[in-house]
Amino acid sequence: MAQTMAEKILAAHAGLEEVVPGQLVECDLDLVLANDITAPIAIKTVREIGASVFDKDKICLVPDHYAPNKDIKSAEQTKVTRDFAHEMAITHYFEQGCMGIEHALLPERGIVVPGDLVIGADSHTCTYGGIGAFSTGVGSTDAGVGMATGRAWFKVPETIRIEVEGELPPGATAKDIILYVIGLIGVDGALYQAMEFAGSTIEDLSVEGRLTIANMAIEAGGKAGLFEVDEKCRDYVSRRSQRQIVEYHPDPDAHYKQVLRIDAADIVPMVSWPHLPSNTHPVTESRHIFVDQAVIGSCTNGRIEDMRAAAEVLCGRTVNDNVRCIVIPATQGVWLECVHEGLMDIFVNAHCVVSTPTCGPCLGGYMGILAAGERCISTTNRNFVGRMGDPTSEVYLASPAVAAASAIMGHIALPSDL
Amino acid sequence: MAQTMAEKILAAHAGLEEVVPGQLVECDLDLVLANDITAPIAIKTVREIGASVFDKDKICLVPDHYAPNKDIKSAEQTKVTRDFAHEMAITHYFEQGCMGIEHALLPERGIVVPGDLVIGADSHTCTYGGIGAFSTGVGSTDAGVGMATGRAWFKVPETIRIEVEGELPPGATAKDIILYVIGLIGVDGALYQAMEFAGSTIEDLSVEGRLTIANMAIEAGGKAGLFEVDEKCRDYVSRRSQRQIVEYHPDPDAHYKQVLRIDAADIVPMVSWPHLPSNTHPVTESRHIFVDQAVIGSCTNGRIEDMRAAAEVLCGRTVNDNVRCIVIPATQGVWLECVHEGLMDIFVNAHCVVSTPTCGPCLGGYMGILAAGERCISTTNRNFVGRMGDPTSEVYLASPAVAAASAIMGHIALPSDL
Repeated sequence: MAQTMAEKILAAHAGLEEVVPGQLVECDLDLVLANDITAPIAIKTVREIGASVFDKDKICLVPDHYAPNKDIKSAEQTKVTRDFAHEMAITHYFEQGCMGIEHALLPERGIVVPGDLVIGADSHTCTYGGIGAFSTGVGSTDAGVGMATGRAWFKVPETIRIEVEGELPPGATAKDIILYVIGLIGVDGALYQAMEFAGSTIEDLSVEGRLTIANMAIEAGGKAGLFEVDEKCRDYVSRRSQRQIVEYHPDPDAHYKQVLRIDAADIVPMVSWPHLPSNTHPVTESRHIFVDQAVIGSCTNGRIEDMRAAAEVLCGRTVNDNVRCIVIPATQGVWLECVHEGLMDIFVNAHCVVSTPTCGPCLGGYMGILAAGERCISTTNRNFVGRMGDPTSEVYLASPAVAAASAIMGHIALPSDL
Repeated sequence: MAQTMAEKILAAHAGLEEVVPGQLVECDLDLVLANDITAPIAIKTVREIGASVFDKDKICLVPDHYAPNKDIKSAEQTKVTRDFAHEMAITHYFEQGCMGIEHALLPERGIVVPGDLVIGADSHTCTYGGIGAFSTGVGSTDAGVGMATGRAWFKVPETIRIEVEGELPPGATAKDIILYVIGLIGVDGALYQAMEFAGSTIEDLSVEGRLTIANMAIEAGGKAGLFEVDEKCRDYVSRRSQRQIVEYHPDPDAHYKQVLRIDAADIVPMVSWPHLPSNTHPVTESRHIFVDQAVIGSCTNGRIEDMRAAAEVLCGRTVNDNVRCIVIPATQGVWLECVHEGLMDIFVNAHCVVSTPTCGPCLGGYMGILAAGERCISTTNRNFVGRMGDPTSEVYLASPAVAAASAIMGHIALPSDL
C-alpha cells in the first residue's frame, strides 16, 4: 500500500511492512531526549521501573531551559540530570561549555539523522522532521519508559501534505511560511497529524529553514513535521554524522487527509499577534505596535543563518532606546561562529546583549522576562498569555530580520522600513 | 591640621577646612548610585519627599543584578527604575545594550573621577576609591534622600593605613593582596574606617588592580578603600572623562588609627574558604578541594585585565568535565574587548560559557546558582553561607588565574600546577 513519510518511518520501526492511520504500533526508538525540566521526572520513571537505560548511546540529556542554573530549584534539577548521566555513562549529555538549546544542538552535532524515530520530553522535539526524522514530543513519564525500554507506542497519525510552490516575496523566510500555514489552518489545524512539507519553495529552503518550519509543526497541533531528504540534507548530515542514514520518501499515491497547496507569492513577512501563533498578520499591518523588547534566538530561530539575518539588519544601526534586544545563539557552536564571522561586533555595537545559549525567555524562564503590559517581538515559537512573563505582557512572533528591524524602529517593522 | 585622604575629601564636600574622626558632617554629593534591587526603594523615598532629583546628571541607575530580567519581579523592579530614569531625564541610566556591572561601568565610562564623593545603594560602592574618590555604600532610603537633596551626612571615619612594599611573588595579584589583608585583620578589622592603601607594591598595580582592592574594602568592614591619584590614575581617567579632577593626597603627618606594614613577599596566591572572606588559605594548601563550578567575573574581577588573566590560563586547555565555568565580562565594553582580543575563542574553545554582563551568580541571583553541597571557586567578593545558592553550597574566593586553573584541574589549583 502507498504510504506517507510518517507511515513509512513508523512501520519500519515497528517491524511492519505497512501501517494505517489510527493503528497502534510499538516501535523501536533511535533516541530519547529530555531537558533539565523534564529529565528529572523521566529519571524517576526509569528508577521506578527499576531498570537501567536501554542504550547509553541513544539517550540525550540537555539542561538548556534554566541553565546556567537560574535558581536553587533549577540547580537541583540539573544536578539530578547530571548525576544520572554520569551514573549511566550517557554518551550524549551536554552541559554548559558544550551546551546548546536541545533542538538546535542535536541536528548540529549529528545526533539525529534522517530516518530516525525520536521521542523527546519537550514539545518542540518535532524539529528533527526538518532532516527527515520522525520525532515528536511526549510526556516526561513516557520519555522515562522510552529511556528504560527503548520502545514507545504510537497511534499512527494521518498525514496532511503542505505543498508550497514558487518564489517567496522579498523578505519572507521559512519562519513566515510556518506562521502563514498556522494562520491558515489554526493551532489545531493539524491536530495529531503528521505535516509533510513539499514543493519547490520548500526544496529551495536551506536545511536550517526546514528545521525552523518543522519546529513549529506542534503549533498547528502536528504530531510531526516532515521534510524529504534531498542533496542539501544529505550534505548537512554527512558533515556531522558517520551514521548510516535511511531515506523514507512518500509514495506518489500515498493517502493524505488533506493536501494544502500554497502559492509562495502569498507569503509575506508575518507576525503572530498575541495570544496564539495562528493570529497572524502581515508586518505591514503591524507597524503601529510598539515593543519594549526583542528576542532573537530559540530552537526555532537560533541557528547561524538566523544570527546572520539579524546581523545584516542590525549592522551599523542601533537598537531603539526604548527596546532591549537580547540575542541568543542557540548553541556554543553557533556562538563561536558569531564571533568568527564578526556578528558579535555588530550585535554589541548595535546595543544588543548576547546571552549564553538557553531557552530562557521563550518560556518565561529567565534572561528577559516581561513586566506587566510590556511587549516583546520574538523569533520564538509561542505567544500564549504570560508566556514570557507577566500575564498582561504580550509576545509577537516573527522572523529574525523582522525582530531586528523592530528592535531598531521601536515598533514592529520590516527591514525595508529602515 | 594634618589630614588623611578620607578626611580631606569629606571636609572639602562639607565646605570645611578640616574634619576629625567621629565628627558628623553634611556633604554635597557628586553622584548617587542605585541598581535594580535598590533603586525602586530609593525612588519611593524620592516620591515620599515629594521632590524631583537634585541633579539629573548626578544620579546613576544601573539595572545589573537581575538583568536581563530573571523573573517577573525583577522585570517590575527594572521597569520602575527605567520609568523613573525617563521621567527625570537621568543622564546616566545604563541598561542592556549599554549595560554593565555598576562598579565596573562607572569608572570605565568616566562617570566617577578622583576627588568625587559618591554614595550608592550597594555595598561595593567603595570600589571607586581605587581612583581616589570617597565612595561608600548606603541603604536604599539614604540613597533616595541623596537623590532628592544632593546631600548626605557622614560620621568622619578613622583611617587605617595599609602599606604594602616590595615585589609580589609569582602568581600573586591585586585580589590576593586584598584577601591577604582581610585574612590579617578580619571581616570587621576596618569597621567604619577608611582604608588608605599605599606603598611600592600598590604603586606598581594597574588601576584595575586598585579597583579590585578598593572593591573589597567593605569585606573588612571598611567605609571606603582609598588610593592616591598618580600618573597611571590620571591617564586612566583622562581617557574616559572631560571632568576636572581634584586630587586629595594625605598629609605625611596625618593621624591614622593604625598603620599596617605588609611585605609583599608574604602575599602568595590566596583562597578564602567558606564562609567568610577572612578565612584565607594559600592556594597551595587548598588543592584537595574539588569544585563543581568556577565563576570568573563580577565587580571585583570582571575587567579586561581579569579576562586576560583567565584567558591566559585557559588558552589551549579545556575545563574539567566535572566543572561548569562561567565567564562574565563586567560590561558590554569589556565584552567587546574580549571579542576583539580573541579571548572569546579561548573561553568557548575551553568549554566556558560567556554570559551577558551581570552580577548574577555572585549574590545567588541567577546564571550559575549552586545546588546542595556544590562548591564554586569564584572571583567574586563574598562567600557567606548560601551566597551563591543552597545553604549547604560553598564559595571559595580567588583571583581569575586561580579560578581558571581550578576550572581546568577540577580542584583548587595554581596556574603553575597545569
